[in-house]
Amino acid sequence: MLGIDPGLTRCGIGVVDVASDRSATLVHVGVVRSDPTAAIETRLATIASGIRAVIDAHAPAVVAVERVFAQHNRQTVMGTAQASGIALLVAGERGLPAATHTPTEVKAAITGYGAADKRQVQAMVARILRLDEPPKPADAADALALALCHAWRRGPTVGTAAVATPAQRAWAEAERLARR
Amino acid sequence: MLGIDPGLTRCGIGVVDVASDRSATLVHVGVVRSDPTAAIETRLATIASGIRAVIDAHAPAVVAVERVFAQHNRQTVMGTAQASGIALLVAGERGLPAATHTPTEVKAAITGYGAADKRQVQAMVARILRLDEPPKPADAADALALALCHAWRRGPTVGTAAVATPAQRAWAEAERLARR
Repeated sequence: MLGIDPGLTRCGIGVVDVASDRSATLVHVGVVRSDPTAAIETRLATIASGIRAVIDAHAPAVVAVERVFAQHNRQTVMGTAQASGIALLVAGERGLPAATHTPTEVKAAITGYGAADKRQVQAMVARILRLDEPPKPADAADALALALCHAWRRGPTVGTAAVATPAQRAWAEAERLARR
Repeated sequence: MLGIDPGLTRCGIGVVDVASDRSATLVHVGVVRSDPTAAIETRLATIASGIRAVIDAHAPAVVAVERVFAQHNRQTVMGTAQASGIALLVAGERGLPAATHTPTEVKAAITGYGAADKRQVQAMVARILRLDEPPKPADAADALALALCHAWRRGPTVGTAAVATPAQRAWAEAERLARR
């Protein structure tokens, strides 16, 4: 599962492997950066090529991209929307299905609380992936959260009884809370 | 000069040949359509492939794309922003410089009036390109206007004395008005 937190200057990319029992493992986390002083067409090409490299290296089955809204800072949001378009295009051109999730959906899926702050999401991502500390760089944690959110929302339901590890318990608890 | 009026359902594409004396000739006009019921990643791939086909067929030197703003209908504007990102990406990946212009800039460049309506722009595009009627499909006239606008803004200045054809006179007049 490949998650992309689209951005023009920093585009977070995370890959997680989600087993049928919903246990998740970190495969890759990183950020594709583009030079803010470069021309927009060059920046978008840099982002496309960075995403393609991760797809080639890890062969994900699905690409999940954060859904962008127009309500925030106009100039930034247009760059973010363009970067999200690039992410979706690259998925389409590789024949991969793509999905989009809102930040609220991601937060609710990961922490059980749609208005959770960044640190809470990072902490839960670390927990779910059984990491000793939040994944670095911090920006890329959102991409991992997105990948986990997507796996979560589409994956098979696992009964609480079958959940064994602390990460799986945390996940089941978060899911329970998110469904309230 | 390749102009692109980005859109998810209809993406206008126009190619004009602009001589050093600023006389302009229609090379290509068309619309790349994507199926509104298809997945977003498929739609963006369709648009990318349509733009690439026009670039391959006509080898433009520059790509001009309409600049998208977030002030309008949110859902539509995000699709438009994504399509504009695709257009810029395709330019970047083909090594072509890209430029963006606002609708107001285009209207001012073509008609001399930044708040001109669609029909006025279409009529001026037809005049400048020495066409008997506005280029079809109507949506694609905006793409031609964009290409002309870009050629205009970057091209060498031609003195009124050197302007001979009605189209060139119309252009010079529009330029004069736009600079008021």
